[in-house]
Amino acid sequence: MYIENINGPEDVKKLTIDQLPTLAEEIRHALLLRASRHMGHFGPNFGMVEATIALHYVFDSPKDKIVYDVSHQSYPHKMLTGRKDAFLYEEHYDDVSGYSNPHESEHDFFTVGHTSTSISLACGLAKGRDLKGEKGNVIAVIGDGSLSGGEALEGLDFASELQSNLIILVNDNDMSIAENHGGLYANLKLLRETNGTADCNLFKAMNLGYVYVNEGNNVSALIEAFQKVKDTTKPVVVHINTLKGKGYAPAEQNKEEWHYHAPFDIKTGQSLVTSDAPDYSSVTCEYLLDKMKKDPKVVAITAGTPTVMGFTKDKRDLAGSQFVDVGIAEETAAALASGIAANGGKPVFGVYSTFVQRTFDQVSQDICINNSPATIVTFQGSVYGMNDVTHLGFQDIPMLSNIPNLVYLAPTTKEEYLSMLDWSIEQNEHPVAIKLPGKEMISDGKTITNDWSRLNTYEVTEKGSKVAILGLGTFYGLGEEVCEKLKEAGVNATLINPHYISGLDETLLQSLKEEHSVVVTLEDGILDGGFGEKIARFYGSDDVKVLNYGLKKEFLDRYDVAAVLKANRLTREQIAEDIQKLL
Amino acid sequence: MYIENINGPEDVKKLTIDQLPTLAEEIRHALLLRASRHMGHFGPNFGMVEATIALHYVFDSPKDKIVYDVSHQSYPHKMLTGRKDAFLYEEHYDDVSGYSNPHESEHDFFTVGHTSTSISLACGLAKGRDLKGEKGNVIAVIGDGSLSGGEALEGLDFASELQSNLIILVNDNDMSIAENHGGLYANLKLLRETNGTADCNLFKAMNLGYVYVNEGNNVSALIEAFQKVKDTTKPVVVHINTLKGKGYAPAEQNKEEWHYHAPFDIKTGQSLVTSDAPDYSSVTCEYLLDKMKKDPKVVAITAGTPTVMGFTKDKRDLAGSQFVDVGIAEETAAALASGIAANGGKPVFGVYSTFVQRTFDQVSQDICINNSPATIVTFQGSVYGMNDVTHLGFQDIPMLSNIPNLVYLAPTTKEEYLSMLDWSIEQNEHPVAIKLPGKEMISDGKTITNDWSRLNTYEVTEKGSKVAILGLGTFYGLGEEVCEKLKEAGVNATLINPHYISGLDETLLQSLKEEHSVVVTLEDGILDGGFGEKIARFYGSDDVKVLNYGLKKEFLDRYDVAAVLKANRLTREQIAEDIQKLL
Repeated sequence: MYIENINGPEDVKKLTIDQLPTLAEEIRHALLLRASRHMGHFGPNFGMVEATIALHYVFDSPKDKIVYDVSHQSYPHKMLTGRKDAFLYEEHYDDVSGYSNPHESEHDFFTVGHTSTSISLACGLAKGRDLKGEKGNVIAVIGDGSLSGGEALEGLDFASELQSNLIILVNDNDMSIAENHGGLYANLKLLRETNGTADCNLFKAMNLGYVYVNEGNNVSALIEAFQKVKDTTKPVVVHINTLKGKGYAPAEQNKEEWHYHAPFDIKTGQSLVTSDAPDYSSVTCEYLLDKMKKDPKVVAITAGTPTVMGFTKDKRDLAGSQFVDVGIAEETAAALASGIAANGGKPVFGVYSTFVQRTFDQVSQDICINNSPATIVTFQGSVYGMNDVTHLGFQDIPMLSNIPNLVYLAPTTKEEYLSMLDWSIEQNEHPVAIKLPGKEMISDGKTITNDWSRLNTYEVTEKGSKVAILGLGTFYGLGEEVCEKLKEAGVNATLINPHYISGLDETLLQSLKEEHSVVVTLEDGILDGGFGEKIARFYGSDDVKVLNYGLKKEFLDRYDVAAVLKANRLTREQIAEDIQKLL
Repeated sequence: MYIENINGPEDVKKLTIDQLPTLAEEIRHALLLRASRHMGHFGPNFGMVEATIALHYVFDSPKDKIVYDVSHQSYPHKMLTGRKDAFLYEEHYDDVSGYSNPHESEHDFFTVGHTSTSISLACGLAKGRDLKGEKGNVIAVIGDGSLSGGEALEGLDFASELQSNLIILVNDNDMSIAENHGGLYANLKLLRETNGTADCNLFKAMNLGYVYVNEGNNVSALIEAFQKVKDTTKPVVVHINTLKGKGYAPAEQNKEEWHYHAPFDIKTGQSLVTSDAPDYSSVTCEYLLDKMKKDPKVVAITAGTPTVMGFTKDKRDLAGSQFVDVGIAEETAAALASGIAANGGKPVFGVYSTFVQRTFDQVSQDICINNSPATIVTFQGSVYGMNDVTHLGFQDIPMLSNIPNLVYLAPTTKEEYLSMLDWSIEQNEHPVAIKLPGKEMISDGKTITNDWSRLNTYEVTEKGSKVAILGLGTFYGLGEEVCEKLKEAGVNATLINPHYISGLDETLLQSLKEEHSVVVTLEDGILDGGFGEKIARFYGSDDVKVLNYGLKKEFLDRYDVAAVLKANRLTREQIAEDIQKLL
């Protein structure tokens, strides 16, 4: 096999152009085998095999610098830049991350995981090169789905200002994670249909050069195009037409399902792990579909990730115009929600915790200053969520809970969640965000009677003395465990479910002083700027001792949850031990 | 005068088209008089007089809903919607805010102040209308300068998905605050030069309808165009060519200077208040220009507000390619800085505190995860900064200081600032942000010898006992005053300049326990998620009492600083009193 002898881009260049399709086949075969056994991004990589080979055939990485957008399509790049073993041999599958990573290779320039960043980052590399008076190509590789994001469009607009070398490779497979949404996709379609010759051209309207390659999975055609633009002295877009999932029939046919995939049977494409257990995604969808039927003003909003709210294709069809996918455009999703709420609609924007930070300004300005009664639901905002450094879910408490006017809620069970969600949708007073807990969804069947409009009313679920434990969201369960542990030592602690992340129940906190000398906070997020520190401030000048438990402020990558919890003294034993020392 | 009889849009409609130019003249005259006596946005309003009259002549506000981007061009709108007195009579000048404001009028739909939000917000109003099955026009009014922002471009891209009524009025005066930057402006120019007929058309590339009006200050031409698009059933852009500052010669000639203007002499255009005193803007520029001369790798970056860093036109010319204005595109500014730093350049991104939140995700992902040694300087991040609710400067501590890897510094004097800035530019280990203090710049001529690479090393500036006061940034001076006050009562407090917002000097804090029973924190920002709470957490289980001083988490609007400080117990007397109670 050729791939076995490729230890860097120089080895790709040793092959003849005729040999490259075979190399592509080998790469695809390895990708397929690995994917069938190992979670990962599928479709994006399969479409980019030929383009990646052509890039390394024509350009001289790392002197020429390739920046991958999202970088979930960088597996072929990794295979050609000294990391093939992680794709060829099962025992090495975990040697590399799923994204570009400068710690792995000098051929990677950024740790990237969020979309729409590549053009602006590449502009920076190019500007750095120019300031130093150096030469070389800088190439941003961006999928059409990522183009709708604000940062990408800003970057497209800014790029021509560079007046120097920059190549923007637009990998157009006519898909985002799901289908594309947005007007620019009509233009991409027009360009594809006219072989790139249409006069109305988004990229030219941004003052950029433009080259079209219709056969985006033909390595010779790509090499020819790349050679044409190599060493360009002006920013130029190379628009290539590729097939997402190319080379594996099930992925070509069902592109959305095969964007990212669990291990599967290669012959049938059937997943090896299937789960029909309800989770927060499925209950959200079920609840909303029912609500939509009863009230035409209810609308669900996603920014390119419809299934996080459980809205698979069939469910989106059921929701019709009451489901809006703005494309990967979180800023517009938040502003849209504000506008809908301001005009009497009932919007619910569901978003991964890691992506809600992409719209901080809009949550603050468009929603919260205006007190628009929009609802945001954050998913996977937990130490138990995604564990890639670019997709962490434990930083949203400092981000959201400190924005004035926003009511940030922390349910602990399905029942609490749906009760809060229903309240939020029906009320007109506050912008509300709901932080879904991590771990498996807990459903205890309890009827929830809380009046959520009584803001910042915490709930005492177990009355004890000496020690009060505030277990927020996911960590309410940990609070229960600590209580159990303390009971073994003869301490009957008070257990509290705070429900509200963004405000203090001052009356309750005040009253705790009477029979408690220690107050403990547990939160599923970093401590800095979080919930516990507010409690520490409240008791700052009192005799009550406060112990805050949560995570250290740091970027973790592909971590082991148990190890992280232990390192942060977040096991029941450690916490109980600390408490007992104070008693 | 016609204007005296206009109490709402219905009165505009009573005039004949022939009378409207006279109304425009009256409005302009009132704007000129008011501006000459009262701070405010100038150029944006002068260009929009005719378009605003035409909007209210053709459309039926508030059933038809007009959303102004930034809304610093909404003064004529206010004059035609029941708020003329605030522009005609000096004693009423302060009755209205400088931005659109639903608390003032049913003709305003959002409190807006940041750019690039109008299209997405208008999409929301339109979607709300559609969900309710209602009719009516929704109009977003956006200047060309605001188009470069990510949210605006996302909105342009998303709009066509609505498939219903939406009118996007692009007010093209060929200027941002300063000159425009970005490729799309070449397309706007092409469209202006071809009377809107060029085939390559950014708006059509976004799948939107398009109408061009060359005489954007001709009320009849505008009325005709608006009548044509009224009740459109598909999103359409009306691109109008206007003159910024139209009708006042100095403003027409020097558009940047007259974007916003202090009171001035109408005859000469000379400002009535002039100040040549150096401030943080001027010293930043002076320092950077000098640094650029010595090192070609140093580059200053702005997102459309060059003068915040002191870079007026003449200074930008001096800096040449070492000054980059990305246009209003903060996300790209941050990513660009990361890319430049990653490729060996030395970028400094200067930004108003209120706008840095527009790029939260890029600071976190593009800069901090990658540990790119970029420098961000935040201006006016203070209770003493801008006091419109949309431009507050006291929320950046929770936002920035809780992002892992970011070193957030708080200088208290010019000398500390320049020492920190120089260190930051020259080091390669950390992303650094510097929070400039509010109030007048203090320069004490001190030689600074601190080694800023010793992260989180606080400085004890006065050694006392019992009480330790940590005075952060702007409020270091308040700390000195409190110390003085305590001395009067016989208490010699320890005074500390923390320098670092984003981390604790645990050794020092630990050692304070020996001779101090009270630790006080003072910070120029909201308490929630801020600096003081970290100190409270640190001492949570100790006997040391902690008092945190800062602002309440709330959106304030056009506030009086002294009153706000008092309400937050931030006077020296109040603080000293609280401390003494604890001793």
